[in-house]
Amino acid sequence: MTAPTTVSQTPTATTSSELADLLAAVSAAAAPLAALRPSERAGLLRAVADALDAAADELVQLAMEESHLLEGRLRGELTRTTFQLRLFGEVLEEGSYLEATIDPADPEWGMGPRPDLRRMLVPLGPTVVYAASNFPFAFSVAGGDTASALAAGCPVLVKAHSGHPRLSVRTAELVIGALAAAGAPKGTFGLIVGFEKGVEALKDPRVKAGSFTGSIPAGRALFDIAAGRPEPIPFYGELGSLNPVFVTPGAVKARGAEIASGFVGSVTLGVGQFCTKPGLLFVPAGHGLDEAILAAAREVGPATLLNQRIADGYGEGITKLVGASGVTPMIEAAPVDGLSVGPTVIKTTVPVLLEQADTLLEECFGPASLVVEYDGPQEMLAAARAFSGNLTATVHGEESEAAEIAPLLDLLRERAGRLLWGGWPTGVSVTYAMQHGGPWPATSASLHTSVGTTAIRRFLRPVSFQTMPEELLPEALHDRNVLGIPRRVNGTLTTDDVKA
Amino acid sequence: MTAPTTVSQTPTATTSSELADLLAAVSAAAAPLAALRPSERAGLLRAVADALDAAADELVQLAMEESHLLEGRLRGELTRTTFQLRLFGEVLEEGSYLEATIDPADPEWGMGPRPDLRRMLVPLGPTVVYAASNFPFAFSVAGGDTASALAAGCPVLVKAHSGHPRLSVRTAELVIGALAAAGAPKGTFGLIVGFEKGVEALKDPRVKAGSFTGSIPAGRALFDIAAGRPEPIPFYGELGSLNPVFVTPGAVKARGAEIASGFVGSVTLGVGQFCTKPGLLFVPAGHGLDEAILAAAREVGPATLLNQRIADGYGEGITKLVGASGVTPMIEAAPVDGLSVGPTVIKTTVPVLLEQADTLLEECFGPASLVVEYDGPQEMLAAARAFSGNLTATVHGEESEAAEIAPLLDLLRERAGRLLWGGWPTGVSVTYAMQHGGPWPATSASLHTSVGTTAIRRFLRPVSFQTMPEELLPEALHDRNVLGIPRRVNGTLTTDDVKA
Repeated sequence: MTAPTTVSQTPTATTSSELADLLAAVSAAAAPLAALRPSERAGLLRAVADALDAAADELVQLAMEESHLLEGRLRGELTRTTFQLRLFGEVLEEGSYLEATIDPADPEWGMGPRPDLRRMLVPLGPTVVYAASNFPFAFSVAGGDTASALAAGCPVLVKAHSGHPRLSVRTAELVIGALAAAGAPKGTFGLIVGFEKGVEALKDPRVKAGSFTGSIPAGRALFDIAAGRPEPIPFYGELGSLNPVFVTPGAVKARGAEIASGFVGSVTLGVGQFCTKPGLLFVPAGHGLDEAILAAAREVGPATLLNQRIADGYGEGITKLVGASGVTPMIEAAPVDGLSVGPTVIKTTVPVLLEQADTLLEECFGPASLVVEYDGPQEMLAAARAFSGNLTATVHGEESEAAEIAPLLDLLRERAGRLLWGGWPTGVSVTYAMQHGGPWPATSASLHTSVGTTAIRRFLRPVSFQTMPEELLPEALHDRNVLGIPRRVNGTLTTDDVKA
Repeated sequence: MTAPTTVSQTPTATTSSELADLLAAVSAAAAPLAALRPSERAGLLRAVADALDAAADELVQLAMEESHLLEGRLRGELTRTTFQLRLFGEVLEEGSYLEATIDPADPEWGMGPRPDLRRMLVPLGPTVVYAASNFPFAFSVAGGDTASALAAGCPVLVKAHSGHPRLSVRTAELVIGALAAAGAPKGTFGLIVGFEKGVEALKDPRVKAGSFTGSIPAGRALFDIAAGRPEPIPFYGELGSLNPVFVTPGAVKARGAEIASGFVGSVTLGVGQFCTKPGLLFVPAGHGLDEAILAAAREVGPATLLNQRIADGYGEGITKLVGASGVTPMIEAAPVDGLSVGPTVIKTTVPVLLEQADTLLEECFGPASLVVEYDGPQEMLAAARAFSGNLTATVHGEESEAAEIAPLLDLLRERAGRLLWGGWPTGVSVTYAMQHGGPWPATSASLHTSVGTTAIRRFLRPVSFQTMPEELLPEALHDRNVLGIPRRVNGTLTTDDVKA
């Protein structure tokens, strides 16, 4: 890593007049950005991806300095980020995301004659994205929320996370430059630095949506602002998750040692600073995995947390967990030397967990997890019922146990956005079928996802056109399928033209 | 109409213990209702439709007694209501609404190896529906919100509207009976009578969504409750709309008289008690339509409003409108004899409208509308910019004027859910492409619609399954396309099976 750091000083906070300019700019950009063809916006996303890839060395160096994350992890995260931008470009070109729907006039329609109606999705308008600390690329300035909103056709203001301010400014420079060079409307993208102006932006009537990844208290505060406005706006907060993992007796028997080491690996990946970190491992009483878990945990050396605020919160979290009655620390490590920390694993039982749910079912962000023994299937189900919303829930079982496991999966499906059979919840692939969301407090909007191609849907709203002449209709709704996209015509999906 | 009225007394309010029973029942019904196949739920919707159709005479008689609406209108509304239930049944069987998406494992996926991921929509859970006064069938006990939620697989508690309590109870009896006979889980549907318990239900943690059609203040109050819960839930309020209509000089010239009479007809349809009533008609200065409008308005005889609360609100509304400075009443009629009222039409200009936007851009529910003269295209655009969200916006123009009209349509598209070219916004067809929604205050959730087949989407959330064995996957996500539905496989829509 020898690339020079181009941003050497911590940027100063956005001023009131700068914020006013940014808001005016995204507001002015909304109509021209919405007017671009989907394929043109796909070109913008690719231009941003190319610019970030070209600056990879510089960006990764900055990210390492500011986040303490390792180079390999950061390079992988940047790859994911630019892949995501390009994948969303493909989604724009495929065109299903528009949900183009055409009902030609029908005098025989069952409830009475139907006029010609044509419906599609259009952009919501300027969006404020609150970047996360733990993903300096993938959930930050040019991350998933930004990619989603731009793909939808919404100008974006990103509120930079204070954990990587120089990286944020440099990424924003690259994004703005790439957009401009690719012909995006002026004002399509801007960066806000500082807490106060970040909050102020969400209150501005020109802003039509907000998006956030972070803690429950911060997310709740912003959600309340968005919902409390004179004109309430959607607010997509991805907040807290415990990500329970249930291990059946059959799985313990078949591959207990592998599960023990996989568990510790997932808990400590990225120093436990993932929203999908498994915070609870449910194992049958008499599982005999203590030694294997402990051995795996001892092998994990100390690693550096993102920043002092995370370290302080983590220290408080494990103090609370360890202090609960009826729990036994298997291995315990508070941060030392400021940010350096090893894993903490605590043992308890389902009855203790349920009795102290307020303490033990609270997310502890960092490399800590609880191993919880359940005494029979009824205790396992009782534990599953105690959860509120989660991003993920995982079951390690044997297919021969399917009948006994089905009721557990039913309970978990009501409480999580992604259900895993085997494997570990960390590592969220950006695909068509990914769901990264879930009931509160996993997110503030369980109808949506913040990862995967359908994340774009968050920034779109439907509009119908009734008996509109073709020259005044958006191209996607012309009789001739100009864009070659899947459309629902008379209730049936087709890529055919509409017959006159 | 000779059918006997079976419900002769106003029902008593739901008690605390009755509400507790209702909430326990919908909560218990959620899992078994969700577990039904889409085709089985389609059968439930059809059973409800059949039961309502079979009782049409009795129901329409009750509705006439309680709402003062005319028999023809009510029969048409009941037809729409049962048509809607059956159409939603077809949507369930077609299966696209599940958004089934399958990403087979892919070691070559661009951001790194992808696990097998399969995603579909699942029901949100028990839903409270607040019925409207002005549609005793289509937006009431078995109306669009109920049909949507049941189709999605969500048990429903309807809070009956006090404007038609006996009809509500009788409709609920029929719904409950039909569901039971068709094999629906016990507790799938229930009725709440009374304001207090209706509000209380929305606060219950077992309730996962709310839906409402009515006034802005009432909708806002319920929205605030839903958003302010410890676990915020989606709240779909369809609230207020002005439904502006813009008439170009070309249209005045081509068919001014037809527009004048069409306008008065739409304003006074259903005694002006539609959320899509055109509250503003923008006409070019010197239009010369005053006499035609006045003549049409004089031809409309007095008609009976729904109830005293509507009449009182309407009386206050027109007093405010008529009292504004710079407006001229063309014809003015406050309710007399309690509920009987003729139309009110008021004249003004765009500068006056903009100066007194707070007064003149407030919805007046009933047969009142403003005729607003604009002086040139710039004033017309300035007026369009003054609007916040609307359910509809209409343009009467000539295709030869398309170039001048395009900027107006762009402005209106940002502010409305449905754009009409010609015609009138009253009369909302239930189709695939209908959008009945719009930015605040038209609705509290502009991403959604309360009419049309995509209304079902409001009560569904996505879940992904990762590397899940087929026997534990929902049928919709099996390799073999058991349900024969459109699915997105590897990013492409298909009805094919997934190849191993």
